[in-house]
Amino acid sequence: MAKSFLALAIILYFCLFQCFAASGSMRKAKRIRARIPCKTLVFYFHDIIYNGHNAGNATAAIVGAPAWGNMTILASQNHFGDLVVFDDPITLDNNLHSTPVGRAQGFYIYDKKEIFTAWLGFSFVFNSTEHKGSINFAGADPLMNKTRDISVIGGTGDFFMTRGIATLMTDAFEGEVYFRLRVEINLYECW
Amino acid sequence: MAKSFLALAIILYFCLFQCFAASGSMRKAKRIRARIPCKTLVFYFHDIIYNGHNAGNATAAIVGAPAWGNMTILASQNHFGDLVVFDDPITLDNNLHSTPVGRAQGFYIYDKKEIFTAWLGFSFVFNSTEHKGSINFAGADPLMNKTRDISVIGGTGDFFMTRGIATLMTDAFEGEVYFRLRVEINLYECW
Amino acid sequence: MAKSFLALAIILYFCLFQCFAASGSMRKAKRIRARIPCKTLVFYFHDIIYNGHNAGNATAAIVGAPAWGNMTILASQNHFGDLVVFDDPITLDNNLHSTPVGRAQGFYIYDKKEIFTAWLGFSFVFNSTEHKGSINFAGADPLMNKTRDISVIGGTGDFFMTRGIATLMTDAFEGEVYFRLRVEINLYECW
Repeated sequence: MAKSFLALAIILYFCLFQCFAASGSMRKAKRIRARIPCKTLVFYFHDIIYNGHNAGNATAAIVGAPAWGNMTILASQNHFGDLVVFDDPITLDNNLHSTPVGRAQGFYIYDKKEIFTAWLGFSFVFNSTEHKGSINFAGADPLMNKTRDISVIGGTGDFFMTRGIATLMTDAFEGEVYFRLRVEINLYECW
Repeated sequence: MAKSFLALAIILYFCLFQCFAASGSMRKAKRIRARIPCKTLVFYFHDIIYNGHNAGNATAAIVGAPAWGNMTILASQNHFGDLVVFDDPITLDNNLHSTPVGRAQGFYIYDKKEIFTAWLGFSFVFNSTEHKGSINFAGADPLMNKTRDISVIGGTGDFFMTRGIATLMTDAFEGEVYFRLRVEINLYECW
Repeated sequence: MAKSFLALAIILYFCLFQCFAASGSMRKAKRIRARIPCKTLVFYFHDIIYNGHNAGNATAAIVGAPAWGNMTILASQNHFGDLVVFDDPITLDNNLHSTPVGRAQGFYIYDKKEIFTAWLGFSFVFNSTEHKGSINFAGADPLMNKTRDISVIGGTGDFFMTRGIATLMTDAFEGEVYFRLRVEINLYECW
């Protein structure tokens, strides 16, 4: 009898421990969450801005500009006020000519006179065997920083309801016409 | 004594089960969440684009366009680059003349040369006895698909902090001036 | 023996209580969450729209306008269709000349003909000892209301993955060139 009682006490001890651990981590769950991505993805995308002479392969165009600007040349004062719409190919490596795995679609607006910065609103749209669905992004892009973080504000399909952080890096650029971005997407909310 | 001991053991068994179930589902909660909406809403909204001749009843206007476009005619190349601002009535059925229950306010940008696609940023704004507050949306809209999913990125008032998915469907259109969208909103985070 | 048994029963009772409390609050956590901010911040930001004569101190510019508008004068019909890009100083008090603690960068679009309303997409960008990182906002701004709520849709750095509500208040304005907004940011998701 004493032996079973001891066994019972030991089991009970672990149960109690579980109980308090459970309620404790639940309380913490509201405040501190693990910053461990549930998914990480790396892509490149390629932006070729229309300049009046490259209609054939341009993937982006200026569609809004300040009083001192126009729609074929990025404006003075660090392009402040230029609104650019894009439909850029997404590739797995840094080669513009690799087979695209999706499209980056949306806009950016240059928003500072003294330096290059932009505000981004766009989506990655996938429709391949690998990925179906979209990832939606928004945030400030201080272009001159080596890396910049923007928000993953939602997703659909394979990326249903996701949230996270996308780290942008300018991988290459040629004049004011072509630039290539590397994006590392870390998703912290997966459903 | 043996009997009470048995009863105690049984209770303990269930407690242990609870303990492990609780800690287990908590661990899972971080990874897999139920895709069951906490709220579903269906609305229609009606977009009448200003074309130079319909100032009286237009609810939308082109305010940005590429070099080859203008502000009264949607541009060639599938309207690529056209930025449209709207303040559209929201109705409960598909009748433009039904009493609006709110306004759909924001913008879309046509963003592909080869086919109709757009990027949307807008809100549903309600101020009735039924609903007070706003629902905020963002995402890619591949218009030619029968249904397309965008993200509900937030909300205020009755829709405080909500997140979810909105499924758009083109319910009708007339030329390039009027179109009507059906929206099914499934909210998966309700506060 | 009977005494220890009693003690055991009492401990067990509390454990059971814990078990059920834990599983209960977890079930509720999915549905009803506490509307208690994990962080509250108050800032002011200052918008000076370019009007053709204030290039030196303008912080914003019209970059999109409807057919009846232009880039130096806000359009008739309550500025419907005007797209404004801004890079505004953020201050801790309501003084335009206080040392900025960050920049408010993004855009607003006036989106209603009958009254002043706008749709906002912007970020607060901080890079001081106090705050590093960004807060991203989106939502409808019915300017004529004393206070209006928009969504905090994400954040980076010190504001990693945050969500919440920002309450805007027009603190002052001068003609159609200068206006000052007070923003109270209540974050309900902190990581």
